[in-house]
Amino acid sequence: MIGRTRDPNKAEVADVRATNLALVLRCVREQGPCSRADIAAATGLNKTTVSSLVSELLRRRLLRETGTTGNRVGRPAIMLTLDGASCAAIGIEVNADYLTAVVVDLAGRPVLSWRRAFPGGTVSPARAVTAVTALIRRVVTRIEHDGRQVLGLGVALPGLVDPDGRARLVPALNWRDVDFAAELVDALRGPGFPVEIGNDANYAVLAEHRFGEHAGTRDLVYLTGGTSLGAGLFVDGALRRGHSGYSGEAGHIPVPAPGGSAHLASVASVPAIVRRVLPSQTRDDEHLSLAEVELRIDEVVSRARAGDTATLARLDEAAHDLAAGVLTLVSLLDPTRVVLGGYYAELAPWLLPVVNGVLDTRAVPVEEPIAVASSLGLDAPALGAAARVLDAVEEGRFPDGTPSATRDLAVAARAPR
Amino acid sequence: MIGRTRDPNKAEVADVRATNLALVLRCVREQGPCSRADIAAATGLNKTTVSSLVSELLRRRLLRETGTTGNRVGRPAIMLTLDGASCAAIGIEVNADYLTAVVVDLAGRPVLSWRRAFPGGTVSPARAVTAVTALIRRVVTRIEHDGRQVLGLGVALPGLVDPDGRARLVPALNWRDVDFAAELVDALRGPGFPVEIGNDANYAVLAEHRFGEHAGTRDLVYLTGGTSLGAGLFVDGALRRGHSGYSGEAGHIPVPAPGGSAHLASVASVPAIVRRVLPSQTRDDEHLSLAEVELRIDEVVSRARAGDTATLARLDEAAHDLAAGVLTLVSLLDPTRVVLGGYYAELAPWLLPVVNGVLDTRAVPVEEPIAVASSLGLDAPALGAAARVLDAVEEGRFPDGTPSATRDLAVAARAPR
Repeated sequence: MIGRTRDPNKAEVADVRATNLALVLRCVREQGPCSRADIAAATGLNKTTVSSLVSELLRRRLLRETGTTGNRVGRPAIMLTLDGASCAAIGIEVNADYLTAVVVDLAGRPVLSWRRAFPGGTVSPARAVTAVTALIRRVVTRIEHDGRQVLGLGVALPGLVDPDGRARLVPALNWRDVDFAAELVDALRGPGFPVEIGNDANYAVLAEHRFGEHAGTRDLVYLTGGTSLGAGLFVDGALRRGHSGYSGEAGHIPVPAPGGSAHLASVASVPAIVRRVLPSQTRDDEHLSLAEVELRIDEVVSRARAGDTATLARLDEAAHDLAAGVLTLVSLLDPTRVVLGGYYAELAPWLLPVVNGVLDTRAVPVEEPIAVASSLGLDAPALGAAARVLDAVEEGRFPDGTPSATRDLAVAARAPR
Repeated sequence: MIGRTRDPNKAEVADVRATNLALVLRCVREQGPCSRADIAAATGLNKTTVSSLVSELLRRRLLRETGTTGNRVGRPAIMLTLDGASCAAIGIEVNADYLTAVVVDLAGRPVLSWRRAFPGGTVSPARAVTAVTALIRRVVTRIEHDGRQVLGLGVALPGLVDPDGRARLVPALNWRDVDFAAELVDALRGPGFPVEIGNDANYAVLAEHRFGEHAGTRDLVYLTGGTSLGAGLFVDGALRRGHSGYSGEAGHIPVPAPGGSAHLASVASVPAIVRRVLPSQTRDDEHLSLAEVELRIDEVVSRARAGDTATLARLDEAAHDLAAGVLTLVSLLDPTRVVLGGYYAELAPWLLPVVNGVLDTRAVPVEEPIAVASSLGLDAPALGAAARVLDAVEEGRFPDGTPSATRDLAVAARAPR
């Protein structure tokens, strides 16, 4: 829809049609399997319109018919459901020492999840483009082999991403002002689907909101628990990026520490916690790869379960520092839930009681614990990038029904975030 | 519209009409003086509809005609503007030792501003109801004497207010679970206009967003600078209260302090700052009334201007603690502006350079300073309560055009926040 001159009346009609297609799709996602009559009742659209929209969605292979049901008044109705087999959304994460790729179908069900080591922190952006492009091609090949069409692609980065999609500053990768989306679209030679990039914590909270155990929570904060600490903020039912897109830089929050003050990331990020609990194993300035963090987490959990006193004491101190950060988030935003992601989940038995204990000292008690562990693991940012693609479909950006068509959509590739 | 059974078709038509009336009103507020043709062009409504809506708004005395203009192509058009003289919105603040009342007209211009001492911190809620009711009656008398109709009333409290309007916890007044709005409506014997209550910092950021020097900023944080410290959050163009309505409890943020950790309010609220700068004048546990804070602020400013070394050194330390709190807010929310309200404005020459200096140490510099001083002074919370009344009018809740009619609107008095 970008760049073409259209008759304004035709444009309006097309927009209304796209909106209604999205409405029907969302209705089936939330309430399916359901009949055309159910959709008409739920959306307020008349039955003729619904029939026409459903026919189009069936043709585009976004919906499929799934049999009839006799458990109802009147004659049996044909039930409709999302056609999970027809489409796929790709989510990628690029980090200092790994790449993640996930694929989900239209209904959000996982299709694949890959992770591989990658020296993102030491290679050039151009080299990263090459590696990510190769990964995307392999994923697309797999998707096409399954007979699916690619709805779109999102790439999560652990840094500041501008609203126009440029990676402004990604310390873990040593990137400054890298227009990664455009470079991927070039390298993919006009992929035929939208490509966007975004901040990892923002995508992770999107994933939590769509796929997590607390899906649908309107006021939700997610803290990343991989190799860095960032926050994604859901406020009043939507992701809030701030005026520059840089919201959620939780790692920089000043917190009390021995010697005065420290940044929250340096005392309570996952890497910081493993450093504090296993101090002999790591020099302070040594960057911990994801694999190294994972090894150390296993060691911490093992020692904690064995009741090792020093381990439990240090975990407790770190938990209190994390609690100071979470108390800050909760005091400011009053979220229903704060979800600790990534490897925080492994440490949850020792972290959550302390964090929720500190939150309980506030003047107004809550009925359910605010701090919880994520069940999405390390895939959360990539899953969120894929979720964003699915959201775009529900905002009206539809594929045309042909599997992985090579269409001239290079302009569409820089989709608005 | 509450409680009455209506023909659904008529209800829909009435709702569309109310929405369009509000649209026209808002258009004139933002672009007036303007003609009917201007309104049609700006709103997309056709000219006949606009004429009809304008006639109704003229009849209700929300708009008035203001002469013609010849500076345009075609024949002179009659210009329309908000009828400032017809209406008034009342904002009240109840605090530990004072009451504030402000009145603004439909265009937001100030009509009156009163403040009087009141021992809110030591009298019962019932006594407060009596005092505030008496204040409201005096204000309404004054408004009616001017021939205006009262659009509504809001009351700002320095504490936690639930979404249904109950004052859950107001430490400064020793209130717990006080249904202040309902009690006022009772005491006023069905006032004939909506009454609501809300948190002072939330109202203050509303006032800043509508009336302040940075009006219209979509991502804005306000910090109260009276006798307590709280934050009001505007995110993506709207006030965000959090899931319980308790957002912005900035005073509880843990910050680094000598001896470990302190709450931001205890080191960097306005009363905390004056205590730190003039330690000999105040016992640590002595509650400072607004009048006492004002006296001490004057002393601090006087000494600072005279270049007193101890004063400047202590101001600088306090400024750095405030900066830690502001850095936290900015890192999390990425607002365009953080507005320091109340008496922070008097101390701005010594606070802002330090706060903005700390913010400038972040990885991505900004073009304009984020931290600024409010020009609204101590009236901000009450002004915001009045602004909320004006917002409600623009959301379709209209007065009927008769000055201070005694209408059976007791049900409407518990207006949704």
